Amino acid sequence: MKILAIDSSGMPASAAVLEGGVLLAEYTVNFQKTHSQTLVPMLEEIKRALDLDLNTLDAVAVAGGPGSFTGLRIGSATAKGIGLALGRMLIHVPTLEALACNFYGSDCLIAPMMDARREQVFAGIYTFCAEQETEVSLRILMDQAPVNVTDLCTRLNRLSEETGKRVILLGDGARTYEDILEECLKAPHFYAPAHLSQQSAGSVAVRAMELARMGRMESAARHRPEYLRVSQAERVRAQKEGSKKNAS
Amino acid sequence: MKILAIDSSGMPASAAVLEGGVLLAEYTVNFQKTHSQTLVPMLEEIKRALDLDLNTLDAVAVAGGPGSFTGLRIGSATAKGIGLALGRMLIHVPTLEALACNFYGSDCLIAPMMDARREQVFAGIYTFCAEQETEVSLRILMDQAPVNVTDLCTRLNRLSEETGKRVILLGDGARTYEDILEECLKAPHFYAPAHLSQQSAGSVAVRAMELARMGRMESAARHRPEYLRVSQAERVRAQKEGSKKNAS
Repeated sequence: MKILAIDSSGMPASAAVLEGGVLLAEYTVNFQKTHSQTLVPMLEEIKRALDLDLNTLDAVAVAGGPGSFTGLRIGSATAKGIGLALGRMLIHVPTLEALACNFYGSDCLIAPMMDARREQVFAGIYTFCAEQETEVSLRILMDQAPVNVTDLCTRLNRLSEETGKRVILLGDGARTYEDILEECLKAPHFYAPAHLSQQSAGSVAVRAMELARMGRMESAARHRPEYLRVSQAERVRAQKEGSKKNAS
Repeated sequence: MKILAIDSSGMPASAAVLEGGVLLAEYTVNFQKTHSQTLVPMLEEIKRALDLDLNTLDAVAVAGGPGSFTGLRIGSATAKGIGLALGRMLIHVPTLEALACNFYGSDCLIAPMMDARREQVFAGIYTFCAEQETEVSLRILMDQAPVNVTDLCTRLNRLSEETGKRVILLGDGARTYEDILEECLKAPHFYAPAHLSQQSAGSVAVRAMELARMGRMESAARHRPEYLRVSQAERVRAQKEGSKKNAS
């Protein structure tokens, strides 16, 4: 199975091609440019480097959210476009599950978090369990959700006390809210180093392969990103409409 | 500190730029092309994507071996060239230490191995130890060396029995010698998934930053790759010269 994977949910834009257990290419850029400028040229670059015929792809994986509204829309639109053009299925990978796969196999409490502003993060808590002598699998201890940083610390403190496990902090939220984390997180912990702290399409591709094996694929037409909360524009409109109703 | 990192020690060619704890870009290609064709265009691509002025680099890190003779020469020559042109120091990162950093923070027995032909691998055994409540650091349990796969299994079995730790197998050698590993490795183990199994310049950059803090830098002129054994061409020549001497 040959998969093209895309992640533009956060600051980095990332694209990768995985085939038969080998990561043929991965390209990640975390720079000031917007994903609308970077993502498609990055895909073209990978296509060139691999002499890639897009028709040989079996599916397109995308980090489907949470994340920045615009970033998710660009990633999903690109994945849908390729999926529709080629008649291929999409694999929607929850962004924070993919981030947790940066620490594949770790039995620590893996806590990826993305800054969601106002002391909130999109976060999840994950660990890997030994299934058999030679297999590990991802276990979701707290599914991805918007959460206050202090509430996340409370959960992590309790889980760490119950299990004796160390916490791994990653994602842009971990650095943004380091002050709060250092104040509230009593559990032993460490911050992911740079190469494992951010979104990478390689992790999306590997998680996508697992989800595909569980049958979790969808048509390009059906795919929608999962924002996990309404956008600011929608909140403002809802408030305005609410106040109009109250006024009338 | 801003570092350019290069790894062309094995099948993949990889380049990355790390600055201030953020991986600005990483590009890895594992395809049939030779590194002489891929590496410099990849560097140019990253330079373009980041609007990178090479003069802003503080150092150049390179996976300095072991690895393929030609791959190491191309990586080292490129790093030396950039270092000499810019007057920057090089950071020589042992290839297998960088590979171990794919599993940064793991307390498993991390066993990266690169195929060295004839049932030999270049391998090392590593783990990460909690230094303090919030820090981990790499510990070398067996320094990188050429070793028979069966001997490596013996070491890993003993270490795992002593410590109760699971083994993580990664690198191209792990797949090449899966049959021998499955026969000889009695310790609980798992194979790294695709995105964490191969060389990546992001890992080289992160390990380079640690080595730089320890003062382990060298001038571009002094840098030499570390092959760990003589090349086949040198072996053949030595044999010929030996038989000439015996004949005369």
